[in-house]
Amino acid sequence: MLNCPFCALINKQLHADVVFENKKAIAFLPLKIEAYGHVLVVPKKHFENIFDMPRAEAASYLQAVQSVSLLLKKQLGATGVNFLHASGKTAEQSVSHFHFHLIPRFENDGLEMWPLAQDMSACRKEIYLKICGGKNEHQ
Amino acid sequence: MLNCPFCALINKQLHADVVFENKKAIAFLPLKIEAYGHVLVVPKKHFENIFDMPRAEAASYLQAVQSVSLLLKKQLGATGVNFLHASGKTAEQSVSHFHFHLIPRFENDGLEMWPLAQDMSACRKEIYLKICGGKNEHQ
Repeated sequence: MLNCPFCALINKQLHADVVFENKKAIAFLPLKIEAYGHVLVVPKKHFENIFDMPRAEAASYLQAVQSVSLLLKKQLGATGVNFLHASGKTAEQSVSHFHFHLIPRFENDGLEMWPLAQDMSACRKEIYLKICGGKNEHQ
Repeated sequence: MLNCPFCALINKQLHADVVFENKKAIAFLPLKIEAYGHVLVVPKKHFENIFDMPRAEAASYLQAVQSVSLLLKKQLGATGVNFLHASGKTAEQSVSHFHFHLIPRFENDGLEMWPLAQDMSACRKEIYLKICGGKNEHQ
């Protein structure tokens, strides 16, 4: 995809600190490293977000995410990992090429990865009805 | 899995507001709804985290996540979606059954979904060498 920085990087027109690569995906350190071991996992095929992800990409992508998670565990001694993902500008997606942020976690690392603070429980019924129309077979 | 609340829910021993279900996965409103349309997507097969995910589960799981994302877009009018995931207690995983949190996003919804604040760029070289030993073919 023209003007996509991740495609340029995949095609080796841009440099990156690549820590993992297979046929379908690549992982590298982001420009702005926001936690120790923070990496991005990116499918080589260009698609923008979860809404337009080709169904066939699902397996290889999540398998690559698993491989990188295991690499962070083995090489950095991480005991956990968080994934952050944004699809769409309103979701704060910065680069329009699908990616997960992986943040390895360590005992007492001081990170706080749970940004949510609203309590919308009062809207439970409304949300439920809006999403599935109350038609789900298990209701 | 004994004593797993998500397995109990999948087996209909516990109630939940289920908004999506297929052969391999289920999606429902969490006990604590922390944003409008916040849902969990859970594989029916019990595994704890990304480290022990069976490779064969990758495709169906991410496809279910896509289906639920499209549902949130269609039914709630979401223009974006965030995923949050934790693997491991140090990553703040609360329930030991693999899951993603999906947060639909809307124009001017006031959410701030980027919790990171450290700048670890000074450690770039050290991190890179630790993760891949500088052996990646693209370096």
